[in-house]
Amino acid sequence: ARPRVGYFFTGKTGTELLTEKLKKITVKEFQSIPVVVNENVSVYDAITTMFLEDVGTLFVVNEKSLLVGVLSRKDLLRASIGKQDLADIPVHIIMTRMPNITYCEKDDLLIEAAQQLIEKQIDSLPVILKKDEGLEVVGRITKTNMTKVLVNLVRDELH
Amino acid sequence: ARPRVGYFFTGKTGTELLTEKLKKITVKEFQSIPVVVNENVSVYDAITTMFLEDVGTLFVVNEKSLLVGVLSRKDLLRASIGKQDLADIPVHIIMTRMPNITYCEKDDLLIEAAQQLIEKQIDSLPVILKKDEGLEVVGRITKTNMTKVLVNLVRDELH
Repeated sequence: ARPRVGYFFTGKTGTELLTEKLKKITVKEFQSIPVVVNENVSVYDAITTMFLEDVGTLFVVNEKSLLVGVLSRKDLLRASIGKQDLADIPVHIIMTRMPNITYCEKDDLLIEAAQQLIEKQIDSLPVILKKDEGLEVVGRITKTNMTKVLVNLVRDELH
Repeated sequence: ARPRVGYFFTGKTGTELLTEKLKKITVKEFQSIPVVVNENVSVYDAITTMFLEDVGTLFVVNEKSLLVGVLSRKDLLRASIGKQDLADIPVHIIMTRMPNITYCEKDDLLIEAAQQLIEKQIDSLPVILKKDEGLEVVGRITKTNMTKVLVNLVRDELH
C-alpha cells in the first residue's frame, strides 16, 4: 500500500488548535512565588511587606504555615482609611478567610484559574498543596501571569 | 485545467494561525469604561471613588477634562500609610503625571497594550483620543481585560 505521507485536513481551524494548546497549559508553568504573612502581623506591617515584595496580594498563614486568609490591596486600602491605628490591627481581622478563599493546585489548567479570577472578580489565586492538616501555599497565579501568557502566545514562545 | 478545490497546506501551525488572529484584535474590542477624577479632589475622595466604581486605577483630568495623571491602588495605599490627613492632600500631589503616563489608542493592537502592561509593570492603560489641546480619556484597558481575552479564546467566543 502507498504510505500515507504529507499533510491532512483535520477539520480543525486555527482557533480550535489554539484552544487545545491553551487547554493543556497548567498553573505550574506560569505561577509566581507566593508572599505570605503570619495572621498576627499588623495591617501596617502587611502593607509594608506588600510594597517591599511588590505584589498585589498577600497570603495569610497560621503558626503551622497553613493557609488561613488572603489580603488584597483593596482589603488593605479599605482598612487604611479607617480611624484605627494600622499598627494595632492584626491582619486576621480584615482578611478574607476560609472557606471564602478561591484556590487552585499546580496541576490545574491555567485557563480554569483564569476563569476563576474573572468569575470571582479577584486579582490572584493561591496555588496550594493539600495536606492532612490543611493547605500549604506553594504558588501564586495572577492576572499578570495571564497577561504574560497572552503576550507569549503572540511571541510564539509558548511551548 | 482542473479546479483547485479542497484543503491546502499553508505551512502554518495552529499557534501561527492564533497569533495572526490575536494580532488583529484592537483595544476597542475589549476596553472598559474609564473612571476619572479631577486633579483637585482629595486622596480620600479618590479612594472612595475607587471603591464605589470598583476599579483598580483612576485617571486624573484637569478642568478641560484632559488627562494629567494616573492613580493606582498602590499610589493610594502608599499615601494612606503616611502621616497626613487624606482629606487634605489633593490627588495631583501623589499621581503619576505626564510625560510618565503610558497610554494607548482605541485602534492600537490589544497585544501591544498587553506588552506595555507587562513591560511597565502597571495594571491599566488609559485609552486616549489625541486632540489639539491634549489627551481625552475614552477608555481603560486592564489585566482583567487581558484575562478575559484568554478565557474567550478557549470558549471559542473570539470573533
